[in-house]
Amino acid sequence: MSAPVLSQQELEQQLSQLSGWRVKDKKLYRQFQFPDFVSAFGFMSSMALVSESMGHHPEWFNVYNRVSVELTTHDSGGITHKDVEWARKANSLANF
Amino acid sequence: MSAPVLSQQELEQQLSQLSGWRVKDKKLYRQFQFPDFVSAFGFMSSMALVSESMGHHPEWFNVYNRVSVELTTHDSGGITHKDVEWARKANSLANF
Repeated sequence: MSAPVLSQQELEQQLSQLSGWRVKDKKLYRQFQFPDFVSAFGFMSSMALVSESMGHHPEWFNVYNRVSVELTTHDSGGITHKDVEWARKANSLANF
Repeated sequence: MSAPVLSQQELEQQLSQLSGWRVKDKKLYRQFQFPDFVSAFGFMSSMALVSESMGHHPEWFNVYNRVSVELTTHDSGGITHKDVEWARKANSLANF
């Protein structure tokens, strides 16, 4: 069974604890900025391991020291606790 | 001194030897597709090392097993031999 889509209230509550994240085009969105490419790709490598172990993968874009991430749960058709968990781990790894 | 921008003729000649690549919005563009996320991110990890050693970094987007790449040489204001070299190495690593 797929994870339930968060209600507007649940989403707002989660966002209040997720520094830097907002909803964009019905997905969780954040842009990260790092000192350089090595740091940016190091972050992506760490989150690739997290993604694979969660079975939950981002849509992400990188150019040099910037990484933009969009999260949604395709099986559920919206933002779920899986996206929130991914975002939380990303913030933790990026030291935000 | 920055690398010279390729002429239209030089670019067409290079493209004829670069399977899958085309010019899109004045950048070299290709989409790669892999069996799964692990393969896609493995490719990105390899090309991250190449990028850092070349001092030449892509704009790239990944979602699950797909990786889209755009290449340009910002210092030169267009496509140069550096982009062609990156593309050639990417094709080689992706087994195309």
